[in-house]
Amino acid sequence: MRMYDLIIKKRNGGALTKEEITFMVDGFTRGEIPDYQMSAMMMAIYFVGMNEEETLWLTMAMAESGNMLDLSEIQGIKVDKHSTGGVGDKTSLALTPMVAACGVKIAKMSGRGLGHTGGTIDKLESFRGFSTEISINQFLQNVNEIGIAIMGQTKELAPADKKLYALRDVTATVDNLSLIASSIMSKKLAAGADAIVLDVKTGSGAFMKKEEDAFALAKEMVKLGQNAGRNTIAVVSDMDQPLGNAVGNALEVKEAIETLKGKGPADFTELCLTLGSLMLVVGGEAKTEEQGRKMLQQVIEDGSALDKLAEFVKAQGGDERMVYHPEQLPKASLRDAVLASEDGYVEKILCDEVGICSLILGGGRETKESEIDLSVGIILEKKVGASVKKGDILAYLYANDQQKLNIAKERLLKAYKFSQEERKEGPIVIGIVKQV
Amino acid sequence: MRMYDLIIKKRNGGALTKEEITFMVDGFTRGEIPDYQMSAMMMAIYFVGMNEEETLWLTMAMAESGNMLDLSEIQGIKVDKHSTGGVGDKTSLALTPMVAACGVKIAKMSGRGLGHTGGTIDKLESFRGFSTEISINQFLQNVNEIGIAIMGQTKELAPADKKLYALRDVTATVDNLSLIASSIMSKKLAAGADAIVLDVKTGSGAFMKKEEDAFALAKEMVKLGQNAGRNTIAVVSDMDQPLGNAVGNALEVKEAIETLKGKGPADFTELCLTLGSLMLVVGGEAKTEEQGRKMLQQVIEDGSALDKLAEFVKAQGGDERMVYHPEQLPKASLRDAVLASEDGYVEKILCDEVGICSLILGGGRETKESEIDLSVGIILEKKVGASVKKGDILAYLYANDQQKLNIAKERLLKAYKFSQEERKEGPIVIGIVKQV
Repeated sequence: MRMYDLIIKKRNGGALTKEEITFMVDGFTRGEIPDYQMSAMMMAIYFVGMNEEETLWLTMAMAESGNMLDLSEIQGIKVDKHSTGGVGDKTSLALTPMVAACGVKIAKMSGRGLGHTGGTIDKLESFRGFSTEISINQFLQNVNEIGIAIMGQTKELAPADKKLYALRDVTATVDNLSLIASSIMSKKLAAGADAIVLDVKTGSGAFMKKEEDAFALAKEMVKLGQNAGRNTIAVVSDMDQPLGNAVGNALEVKEAIETLKGKGPADFTELCLTLGSLMLVVGGEAKTEEQGRKMLQQVIEDGSALDKLAEFVKAQGGDERMVYHPEQLPKASLRDAVLASEDGYVEKILCDEVGICSLILGGGRETKESEIDLSVGIILEKKVGASVKKGDILAYLYANDQQKLNIAKERLLKAYKFSQEERKEGPIVIGIVKQV
Repeated sequence: MRMYDLIIKKRNGGALTKEEITFMVDGFTRGEIPDYQMSAMMMAIYFVGMNEEETLWLTMAMAESGNMLDLSEIQGIKVDKHSTGGVGDKTSLALTPMVAACGVKIAKMSGRGLGHTGGTIDKLESFRGFSTEISINQFLQNVNEIGIAIMGQTKELAPADKKLYALRDVTATVDNLSLIASSIMSKKLAAGADAIVLDVKTGSGAFMKKEEDAFALAKEMVKLGQNAGRNTIAVVSDMDQPLGNAVGNALEVKEAIETLKGKGPADFTELCLTLGSLMLVVGGEAKTEEQGRKMLQQVIEDGSALDKLAEFVKAQGGDERMVYHPEQLPKASLRDAVLASEDGYVEKILCDEVGICSLILGGGRETKESEIDLSVGIILEKKVGASVKKGDILAYLYANDQQKLNIAKERLLKAYKFSQEERKEGPIVIGIVKQV
């Protein structure tokens, strides 16, 4: 078999066989198939596409390119959750303890991420001493004992995807539904969960700007997960403005804690309840989403969700007292307010711009080597639909550097767009894809 | 400027600017743009295409990527000729002395080539002592003094094309008209001639199997040459069976010599007269093709075309006596005949198969390092349309190895296809593209 012939076949509109896809992925992972052939293939796939079977085979081959995590030592149905990401997305922080408190086992791999803020792992490191560098045995033991554990994504997890994504990223071959779906799902499959709940974001701050594209990706991934034998459901949710009010690592942790106490922002709380009730259903703990929602509301009310977070933080070396005393979380030295420059209704908050402000303040990574300042960030006081008067506080900026603060302040004001007509906030959950 | 953005632009159907194409070609030639980005771009071009301007800019950028040959020291109009190649294509050997004998200056760069037989340079080395490794000064002086010189293609000639072609060759991105045309024409433009006559082959033994594709390529190259300010004409000629009767290096030299004496095969002679008359017209030595044809017939008749070959061979260190005594050219030790296995008409001669027989006998190169046996090859005694009886001699094989001879003999017989219906040979010249 020669990679050249596979490129020709795909270029000419053909469908690759399972053997051909496995040959390609294995050869590429081992470095036997050069980048320049793989990038030509990716561009051919961009134009020709892949059918349902090809997409499944590619996903499976990438999932199997490294170690597949074996979660069989954990009793019960293991449920994983994945978000396509956005600004202020602290969902895992609140959602996973809520769900674990209801009895569903959470064995999750997370990343640090490059972008506006850190990833889930960075955020969790706001708890003094917390570490995701735990052994696989410790990981499995924690899930069995307290129902939740999060570890860093190992290098051995779907290495083909890692290598291929890096190549696609520099050759303009990211934007293909089958390739995006197979990249996400290969890691999820390798991570070993029995069921997967996906949060596909759409809007100005999401990878999928258009709703129809988000639904298409959601369908593609649900199909892929189901074809691979995993119970998979996708929620399409709004990312046209930041999620919740907080953007920035420790600030988001605080917001997640408030949410676990039942005092979180409405949009964020609603998203957690929706995703959580689906996780309870696929995890076998609730019969219906309504029942799941009630169970989640119960663990918030009785404090067991918050206690679950503390248990989890402690089990991974963190100072669990900070869960109950969030004022001890990293704090920035400077705070400044962004004031409304006119009367009106908030029509839009340019999501990407808010993210860039967080990055400017030092809350995210520009390169892999960047150090993150966990304390800085933004709290939005007004969101879409709010009625404001000139001089009202739109948002607070938290910083440790006056110059960065000044730049971010100017930019954040420009991210707000006003209208004279009353404008309603759209729903946070746009749709749910269960079957394809 | 970033290559990534150029890939996106082309992928999304855009047209690249002159600056963008120059940036891309220069960066790639210097190794600053990696192969994997260039191959993704080539695949995007395969699907999206390039417009007339982009094709011209790509060609110019590749032509200018190394040293452009300066032929200004040569008086008069310099004419170059290029063939897209095929089996038994010894055109340059006979055509260039004919044209030079009529007064048109031939300053030609040739290659060795990989394939069925050697390239023009290999064939010319059948003359003892002949060398194309001459200095540029010697080259220019020879053209001025005797009207003809051929040198090996220097590494500095359009290096971008060389590097890009090698990449396209392994990434299934060769088959695009704009890319094929720009590859050929970049070298021709860099080689400095004022006018260019192209011989575009079509048929089973050609790169362009279909006539319509050959005409499309011819038009693309004529347009390109004219846009670059070079008088360019293309002939589309038949390569559905080998050209002339001889296939193999010294055998082809002998056939060229016979043709210069007016005793060559009809198809090969006709092609030389057609291409030659066009070269005389663009070279300003003939007013019409009819006049050019008469001039060529005259230099064949009076022996001056043959004398020109001898002059040329001598000027480049070769033994010119062999021109008048072709029996002194390299000779194989074994000869065997392929006999007709049935009565009928020759319906087809599978061109590629004849080429492979030549390669098996040792007449071509399988890899760059292969040594060529100049003496071996094939003489076709029967061509398409010939009426044969069982046992008639179809062809002779010349070899230096009995085993190779046996393999080639069996294979060559299978390359002949017979029919019971009378079948006419098609014309050698299928069309001429002068203006687009």
